[in-house]
Order: sequence, then C-alpha cells, then structure tokens
Amino acid sequence: MRTQVAIIGAGPAGLLLGQLLHTSGIEAVIIEQRSADYVLGRIRAGVLEQVTMDLLEKAGVSARAHAQGLPHDGIELLFKGARHRIDLHALSGGSRVTVYGQTEVTHDLMDARAAAGLTTVYEAANVRVHDFDGSQPRVTWEKDGQAHELRCDFIAGCDGYHGVCRASVPEGALKTYERVYPFGWLGVLADVPPVSHELIYANTERGFALCSMRSTTRSRYYLQVPDTDKVENWSIEQFWAELANRLDPEAREHLVTGPALEMSIAPLRSFVAEPMRFGRLFLAGDAAHIVPPTGAKGLNLAASDVGYLWNAFADHYGDKSNAGIDTYSDRCLRRVWRAERFSWWFTSLMHRFPDTGEFGQKMQEAELDYLIHSRAASTALAENYVGLPMDFGA
Amino acid sequence: MRTQVAIIGAGPAGLLLGQLLHTSGIEAVIIEQRSADYVLGRIRAGVLEQVTMDLLEKAGVSARAHAQGLPHDGIELLFKGARHRIDLHALSGGSRVTVYGQTEVTHDLMDARAAAGLTTVYEAANVRVHDFDGSQPRVTWEKDGQAHELRCDFIAGCDGYHGVCRASVPEGALKTYERVYPFGWLGVLADVPPVSHELIYANTERGFALCSMRSTTRSRYYLQVPDTDKVENWSIEQFWAELANRLDPEAREHLVTGPALEMSIAPLRSFVAEPMRFGRLFLAGDAAHIVPPTGAKGLNLAASDVGYLWNAFADHYGDKSNAGIDTYSDRCLRRVWRAERFSWWFTSLMHRFPDTGEFGQKMQEAELDYLIHSRAASTALAENYVGLPMDFGA
Repeated sequence: MRTQVAIIGAGPAGLLLGQLLHTSGIEAVIIEQRSADYVLGRIRAGVLEQVTMDLLEKAGVSARAHAQGLPHDGIELLFKGARHRIDLHALSGGSRVTVYGQTEVTHDLMDARAAAGLTTVYEAANVRVHDFDGSQPRVTWEKDGQAHELRCDFIAGCDGYHGVCRASVPEGALKTYERVYPFGWLGVLADVPPVSHELIYANTERGFALCSMRSTTRSRYYLQVPDTDKVENWSIEQFWAELANRLDPEAREHLVTGPALEMSIAPLRSFVAEPMRFGRLFLAGDAAHIVPPTGAKGLNLAASDVGYLWNAFADHYGDKSNAGIDTYSDRCLRRVWRAERFSWWFTSLMHRFPDTGEFGQKMQEAELDYLIHSRAASTALAENYVGLPMDFGA
Repeated sequence: MRTQVAIIGAGPAGLLLGQLLHTSGIEAVIIEQRSADYVLGRIRAGVLEQVTMDLLEKAGVSARAHAQGLPHDGIELLFKGARHRIDLHALSGGSRVTVYGQTEVTHDLMDARAAAGLTTVYEAANVRVHDFDGSQPRVTWEKDGQAHELRCDFIAGCDGYHGVCRASVPEGALKTYERVYPFGWLGVLADVPPVSHELIYANTERGFALCSMRSTTRSRYYLQVPDTDKVENWSIEQFWAELANRLDPEAREHLVTGPALEMSIAPLRSFVAEPMRFGRLFLAGDAAHIVPPTGAKGLNLAASDVGYLWNAFADHYGDKSNAGIDTYSDRCLRRVWRAERFSWWFTSLMHRFPDTGEFGQKMQEAELDYLIHSRAASTALAENYVGLPMDFGA
C-alpha cells in the first residue's frame, strides 16, 4: 500500500489533519491501534479556541460545532469567597471560545472521513514507523494475523504521549522538558444543567475546583485532589458535597447533582519534546507536548500543530516549496511554549500547592486581586485564554 | 518632653513623615539609634516612582531630585543574548521613574529638617516604645548617660526590619509571611559612566545581572550570587569580568570599569507583617515589610506607607476624623501585597533558581518572550514598575 502522508493515530489531531489534507487533494491513510469506539469513549477537553474553530471550518466539519457548541464570552474567577468575571470578548477585542466536547469533535471528523470514503485502519497492532530519516519512510502493523506495510512520503505522529512515533526517534535526537504537579483532577461528567452559564475557576482553601460543561444539560466538574488519591476513595455523593464546599453560596444554591456518567482522576503534567520534526516524521499534539488542563490548551495546541503541518504539506505538494516543512518545528514550538507558559501560570495561580506555604497563598491572592483590577493583566489572561493568533509575535 | 507624633527611625521613611507632618502643622520628634553619618552612609535603592516624587514635592524636598534626578522612560530586558526595551512611558500612559539615590533623598530630607529647626535625636540607645495600646504612649531612650522620655499621641515605627517597634508588638498580635530566596545580590557602586542610559535587567545562564546607576557618572551594578557566597571571595576585577560575561556584546563593549566605592552582598527576602497598626503604634516601611530589590519597590513602598500615615494624622488633627487611622493598615497592606507580588514575580522571572530545572528556565524564556510581544503583558509590567496609583483598585 502507498500513500502521500501516513497519519499515526485517529484522535482529533490525526483526523483533523486527514480532513485538511483531503481538502488540498493530498492523500492520507490513518493507522490507529485502538477501535473507533474506544477513541470515541475517551472523555477529554471541551473548550475550543477560535483558531481551532477556524481549522474545523477549513476542514469542512464545523457545522455541528457551530450549531450545538456554546459560545462563551467570559469566565469567572472565584477566590476569597467571591466570583469575578473576566470579559474575554471585550478584553480580547472580540474573540470568544466555544464549549464543544472533544468527543463531539472526534465524532464529526470520523463522520466526515467516512462520508469522503477515506481510509482509516483501526485496531492495528504493533504499529512501527521506519526509515523516516531517508526519503522513503514506511509504516508497518499487524491486523487479523496479517502483516501490513504502508509506504509514504511523510509520517505524521498524532499518536499521543504514549504513542510509537516519539518513541521511535533515536536516543539523543530529542530533548524533553517536564514538570509533574503534586496533585490531580478528579473529574465527573453528569447529565445535570451547569451551575452557571460560564465556566467558574475556583481557588479555595480546600483546593482548586472547576465548573465546566459540555452542553446546557451536561456538566463537567473537577476537583483538585492529592496525587496519591484514588477514584475508589470517592462516591458521587462525596464529590458533590466537596464541590459545594468549594463554591460561593450563590453557586452552591444553583448546583444540581445527579449520577456520574464518568468519574476519574487525571494527573497534571507539563511536557515538551524538542524538536517536533525528524526527517520525514512530524510529531503533532500530545505526541510532542502535554499541558496541565487548566485553561484547556491541549486540544487547541494539537489543532494548531495540525494547522501548521497542513500548510507545510500543502506548500510541498502544491507550491513545491519545503519552507513550511523546514520551519514546522520552530513554528509549532513557538506557540507550544506560549501555551505551556499560560497553562503552567494558570495552574500555579489556581491550585493549592503543598510546598509554597502561606506566602505562596498570599502571592496567589495578590495576583488574583491584581488580575481583576488591572485591565492590562485581565487582557493578558483573556488573549491567552481565547488563544493567541497562530502568527503571534512571529 | 512631649510631642504629637514620636517617629522612631531617621531613615527616609521617618524623615519624610516628619516633613509631611510639618507641612500640616503637626509636631513630631524623631528618635534614631544611629548617627546621622551612619544613616547617610547606607547605600540603598535609587529608583523613585512618581508617587514617591509627588510625596517629596508635598514635603517640599523635591527640588534637587527634580534637578539632578534622571527621568527614565524605559527599561531593557536582556535574555537569550538580546536586549528588548519596555517603553514604560508609552505603556503606562505617560508615567516614568526617576533615578535618584536613596542616600540623596535622605540628605535632602535631613537638610530640610535642619532648616526648619525640627528635633531629631541621634545616637539614642535602648530605645523603647511603651503603652501604645492605651491613650498615652511613651518612648524612652538613653543618651550621654541620661534617661529620656517622650510622651506623645502616636508612635510611628519607621525603624526598619530590625527595629524595636515591630519587636514590641505582643506575641500573637502579628502574623508574618516570608520567603527567603536561594541567592543574594553582589553590588558594586563605582564612579564610572553607566553602560547604558537606561537600566538593563539581564536573565542569563550565569545568573541575573542588573546595570543600574545613581547619576550619569556613578554606576550601580549587581550580580546574582549563591546565598552562600561571601564578598571576600570577590575582587573588583572578578566582578567586572563576571558582569561582562552576563551582558550582550554591545553592552560589554560600552562597559567602563573602575575601583569600587562600595561592594557588598545583600540577601533577597520577601516579608510582610500584618496588621500595620496596633493601637497608637503604626509601622511603616521596612519595619512592616521587605521586598526583594528586583523592581526597586522597597523605598517606594515606605514612601506610600508614610503618605497614608500623613493623611491619617492630618485627618485626625485637622478634620477630627479617625477614618484614616482606622483604615491605615488595610490601605497600606493592599498596596504592599501588590508590590510584594510584583517584586516576587520579577525576581522569579529574572533569576536562575537552583531547583526549578530546565523546565523552569523554559518558563522564564517563554514568559520573557511573551512579555516583549504582548502589549497587554508589557503594560502590566510597566504599570507596576512605574508604580500603581495609591488608590489603585480601591
């Protein structure tokens, strides 16, 4: 089998790249080790930047996101018992975010791919990437007891943090940066109306809490828990009680509880691997970088990586220019580090840290107080939250 | 002896308070344990906010600061080998800072006090403050073998971090917050022209450096050194060589070296004591709070404390209102915590920290890169650097 671009991973990054390449008449095959149902069952982020919405539109898969997604013009910061709204729309000069679940994005992309008759190989075992340092890379895998090979011009590694692509880069060619935070997020998805029509980020004595949502009838809530905690330690009743403890009286009054559709603990980590290209292998999304979820940059960064990669391949095949390929890693990493900084900052600002002591808490309070009183500081938060433009500071 | 306000400490805070009270016709006596020459010999900060200049003007002691001080409209941030200017004047909507040494401020205030024939007791031993929880506080001290007592309405504790005033507050009435940074500043004062006409704050692999000045012919330079380092370990030649190592090639070329007028190592610390008033005892300046010197907020915070205290006493004696007295601590602390946050942030951004690793350095680089490219982020730096208004966010 032969194609132009072999995409490893059928998550939203790989699927979005497939659709974007299709609009440019570039052939791609997606190889995924899991089943489609497994991929769709993963609960992930739900806040899309304008940059991401624009890419979905260019890929021709934005109709349902526009129709069913919830445009949000602000967020609320809760600290010292009171909520303060950050007007993202006014401060950013007219931008907003769209609340629309990653699962829905994946669904829309899968549907579009199926409708276009494009090839995705699911449940591919022992996926391997070969010869990407030469001119004729290959991907091999096994399925139904058969060995398969896909020859291609390029390999796009959209296979996540634990994927085979980054792991296949020779020792010493990668430099990695990492921070692991001393806490996790206990998350609950529930079919109850959200406590508020916008997101509430809460810095409380009992730890961070986030009131998010997927729709007007489906809520997504998170609690900061120690990194040693286990989901088995929590009943859904205990979750609701602790969430109520971390909210202001008005929000507490509006909190609607119900059974959990999903309940799990996710660790918080910052991670970047540099560079993001090795010959004809390109890493995109979680394969190259992880952000802590505070500020919801993970999916959005994956989308902008894919945007740069689409441009690079379109230039290569269309304009016969390799400029986009040669600058891919640098362009991505410039945006990646900005989002890493924002995610690290917002995480540091909102969580209780076991080691920073009372002075550290006073610094958080002083920064939050400054943030809501300074238009400059609020604007800096807003422009990052809605997403810096892809060419910011270029 | 009797007076209205007993001021403990004849540093710039105590002297400024004395002059401001004098303009309002309020009597004050200053008690200082050191000699005038000792006080004048202390080398300290040299960057004055507009808020501070305004208070000097109100005190009638701004003529020389206006004539000889250097108005600065910007600072430069040096990182990854290149300098980037922050236009404080444009970003802050027309504010600037004035470079004028603390020693000169003290000198001007001493001259004004002498000219007005106001009493300062220098070399007072065993200074003690009494009965400030009642209506008739007293200050006692010894001088030339004689015991002295000063009865007063109020005591202003302007006697610094190691002074007797904060130490006299009963156990349990004070809450303190502190962070000690794992490095110090090795400072050199030299009669050589500054390397640049504006300050350069340098984040380098070898540690932080600051190129500051006191005048067009007197430079003040600092190097980050480990907190275990000693000034005896450094010759002036080694200092200049290491400073050159931390500058960009152009600055290195313009660096003029010479003998040191002063060379010393200062530790970096954040410290706040709450509240700042206990009955009829009011703490101001370093007696209540310390900032790390990055961003030069120490003297400026002392000045704004004194400004609030002057207003409080003027209201008390003039308008017979105690509102200013009752709100003194809260008003000061609101501004104090904002300056503490800025100083902590700027210190955290610019220094090498032994424990934050490569990810921490990447966060610094990403933040500096964001700072110079985002007008919002540059504005937040500028508005803090020139000094938030005394009623900011009130």
